[in-house]
Amino acid sequence: MSAPAEAVELNGVNVTQLTDTVGAIQGDPSIAQFRFRARTRWEGGGKSTTEIQGFHGANAEDTSRTEPFVLTGDEPPVLLGGNAGPNAVEAVLHALTSCLTVGFVYNAAAKGIAVRSLDFEIEGELDLHGFLGLSEDVRPGYDRIRIRYRVDADASDDEIEELCHYVQRTSPVLDIVRNPVKVTLARVH
Amino acid sequence: MSAPAEAVELNGVNVTQLTDTVGAIQGDPSIAQFRFRARTRWEGGGKSTTEIQGFHGANAEDTSRTEPFVLTGDEPPVLLGGNAGPNAVEAVLHALTSCLTVGFVYNAAAKGIAVRSLDFEIEGELDLHGFLGLSEDVRPGYDRIRIRYRVDADASDDEIEELCHYVQRTSPVLDIVRNPVKVTLARVH
Repeated sequence: MSAPAEAVELNGVNVTQLTDTVGAIQGDPSIAQFRFRARTRWEGGGKSTTEIQGFHGANAEDTSRTEPFVLTGDEPPVLLGGNAGPNAVEAVLHALTSCLTVGFVYNAAAKGIAVRSLDFEIEGELDLHGFLGLSEDVRPGYDRIRIRYRVDADASDDEIEELCHYVQRTSPVLDIVRNPVKVTLARVH
Repeated sequence: MSAPAEAVELNGVNVTQLTDTVGAIQGDPSIAQFRFRARTRWEGGGKSTTEIQGFHGANAEDTSRTEPFVLTGDEPPVLLGGNAGPNAVEAVLHALTSCLTVGFVYNAAAKGIAVRSLDFEIEGELDLHGFLGLSEDVRPGYDRIRIRYRVDADASDDEIEELCHYVQRTSPVLDIVRNPVKVTLARVH
C-alpha cells in the first residue's frame, strides 16, 4: 500500500484541490452552479448591517461557516452618516480588488508562478448629481475606476502581463462591474 | 437675536443638511465630484485585506475617519480558502443592498416618509465555468441577482412603489451592477 500523494501547494493555494475541482466540474457541470446570499438590515440613518454565511455550491448547501460574517455600511458625515463603516461604493472597490487578488494568485498557482507580494490601489470617480436626482445626464454610479497594482513574482514582465489579461477575462467582480447584470427587486410583506 | 433653527431629522437623517447639500451643489456643481479609494493587500492563499479611509469630496480631502476601515476577503474551503472573510462576489451583494438601504432611507426622509424598518434578502447566481476558464460562453460574474425587501413605513403601497422606482434610478451601486463601468488596470513598479 503506497502513501497518499501529498497535496501540491503554491502561494498558499492547494493546487491539487484546484486541479481536482476543475476535473470534477468537467465531469459534472452542475458542480459549478453557485448561489451566494446576504441579508441586510437598516440600523438607522445611513447605517446598515449585512450578514453573510451560507451559500449553495457544488450541489450542496455550504456549512463551513459556523457564524455569519457581519459587515457594516454607513456614510461619512459629509454624506449625512456616522462613519460606522465604509459606504456602499467603497465596498464595491474592496469587492473588485479582493476579486482580482484571488484571480491573480489562484491562476499564478495553476501556472506554477510563485507570488511573493501583490497589492492594489483603486480609485473611483463619482458625481453626486446622479444619486441626488439633480441631473438626468449624470449616472449615479462610478464614471470610471482606475486600478494600479504591484506584484513581485517569479515571472517575466510578459508572463505577468499575460496573467493580468487572463485574470481580467475571468474575474467575476470585474465582469459584474464592466458588464450589465440583470437585477430584480421585489417587495415582500 | 433669534435662536438658530433646529435641524429637522427623520429616519436618523438630518434633512436640513440634506437640503443644504442639494442647494450647495446647485450653486457649485464641483462640490458633487467625489473620488473614493481603497488599498488591498494579498495575505496568502485567497485572503486579502482592504483598507478604506480617506476620499476626496466637496472640494476637500475628507479627514473625518481617524483610522481606516479594514475589510477581509477570503474564500470558503470549497473554493480553496480559509473562510477568513466573505468572498468578493458576496461583498458585491453587501455593497448593493447597503446602497439601496441608503437610497430608500434618505429619499424617504426627503419626502417626509417615516421608515420604521427596512431589510433585504439578496441572492446571486454564478457559474464557475467562467472564472475557471472552462467555457467562453459563460460569464465569470453573476448571471442574475434577485433582491427581496421588506419595509414598514408611513406610506401607501403606491408611495413605496414610487419610492422604489426612484431609488432604482438613482442608486450608485445598482447603476454600477446593471450598467457598464470603465475600469483600467495598470502595473506599477
